[in-house]
Amino acid sequence: MTDPRDAVRIPLVGRVLEANDTIAAVVRDELQARGIFAVDLIGAPGSGKTALLEATLRTLAGRRRPAVLVGDLTTRRDGDRLARWCDRVVQISTGEGCHLEAGQVRDALSGLDLDGVDLLFIENVGNLICPVGFDLGQNVKVGLFSLTEGDDKAAKHPYLVTAADLILLNKIDLAPYLTFDRAGFEADVRLLNPTVPILGVSSTTGEGLDGWLDWLDAPKV
Amino acid sequence: MTDPRDAVRIPLVGRVLEANDTIAAVVRDELQARGIFAVDLIGAPGSGKTALLEATLRTLAGRRRPAVLVGDLTTRRDGDRLARWCDRVVQISTGEGCHLEAGQVRDALSGLDLDGVDLLFIENVGNLICPVGFDLGQNVKVGLFSLTEGDDKAAKHPYLVTAADLILLNKIDLAPYLTFDRAGFEADVRLLNPTVPILGVSSTTGEGLDGWLDWLDAPKV
Repeated sequence: MTDPRDAVRIPLVGRVLEANDTIAAVVRDELQARGIFAVDLIGAPGSGKTALLEATLRTLAGRRRPAVLVGDLTTRRDGDRLARWCDRVVQISTGEGCHLEAGQVRDALSGLDLDGVDLLFIENVGNLICPVGFDLGQNVKVGLFSLTEGDDKAAKHPYLVTAADLILLNKIDLAPYLTFDRAGFEADVRLLNPTVPILGVSSTTGEGLDGWLDWLDAPKV
Repeated sequence: MTDPRDAVRIPLVGRVLEANDTIAAVVRDELQARGIFAVDLIGAPGSGKTALLEATLRTLAGRRRPAVLVGDLTTRRDGDRLARWCDRVVQISTGEGCHLEAGQVRDALSGLDLDGVDLLFIENVGNLICPVGFDLGQNVKVGLFSLTEGDDKAAKHPYLVTAADLILLNKIDLAPYLTFDRAGFEADVRLLNPTVPILGVSSTTGEGLDGWLDWLDAPKV
């Protein structure tokens, strides 16, 4: 069914994305020139993005030199949590904005001392849908799902799964208390993205974090 | 900081919302004329919206005459789950759309036999942000959070909390396995919405469902 509003809306969405991509290309060039590998971390609210980054930053200490941008509608809670483990953290408040855009990343980076930084984590706003279409100048997109969300979420969020360079399945420590068909989840991922690695992790117990850190260290094409 | 794209975007968002509100008013009038009470259920992916509705429909059998609209980007999984408990279910596929709009509700209702129906559940797309601003012609908005998402989600999603007529806190059966500061969560809710009821529920054990069903039955202003 055609919605007459789409005549206005679809070209506008195209223009917004095009403007975003132009800025993202500039961000990407600058990061590349500085030798910074950038990760756009996308997951639902409560999937454990911040807890994963806390565990990651703690483990990376002395091994890599990370910086973090973290997007939320409001509050500085995530930024404050991450600042305990990393001295280069910027909290981006999006207001009613449901995703980060490249202009926000560009502006946040301009306020950061990037000397020596070799790894940039961008924790996107908690949302499995809207962040997917916005290039932030990242090298890779990581899709974070968690066991507590149910095993149907890959099938129901095909745009993220298709776009992801890595799928992390978080909160595996809670498996004994949940019904989660991991083989079914992985089969759904495979239908959409046959080659993407899928790693189980727990920020609480640390299980699987080595695999995630090895993936970060490995050269990417 | 002013983004030059906002000159185009902000008026357009206003026009989209205005068009939506016009349709929502028509939907609301039709539902009211039929004596149907409509609930817009908003929660994150994996917060347990479908499981809550399954348990609700099972319990309501013979007590109320419900119909359900359920929004997802893709798949018929939720609609199929709910159709086991209710013979009037429509699955709405939103494609890349991150929320339901009133026009989709209007179109879905036109395909449903509403004779005798007195309760309409609209399960929105799994997203704590975008659905909030779109009036669907509902009587009430219910914000569904779950213990597994962490206790900071009310503070981080103030627009939903402020707009909600009821806050449900789901998956309380998992409390023994999680760290969740319920008093802190409720205090965050109270700062944003001093009078909204907050009910703990578990679709798995059935705990708290009576309170939710009583709330549905109680007259609303």
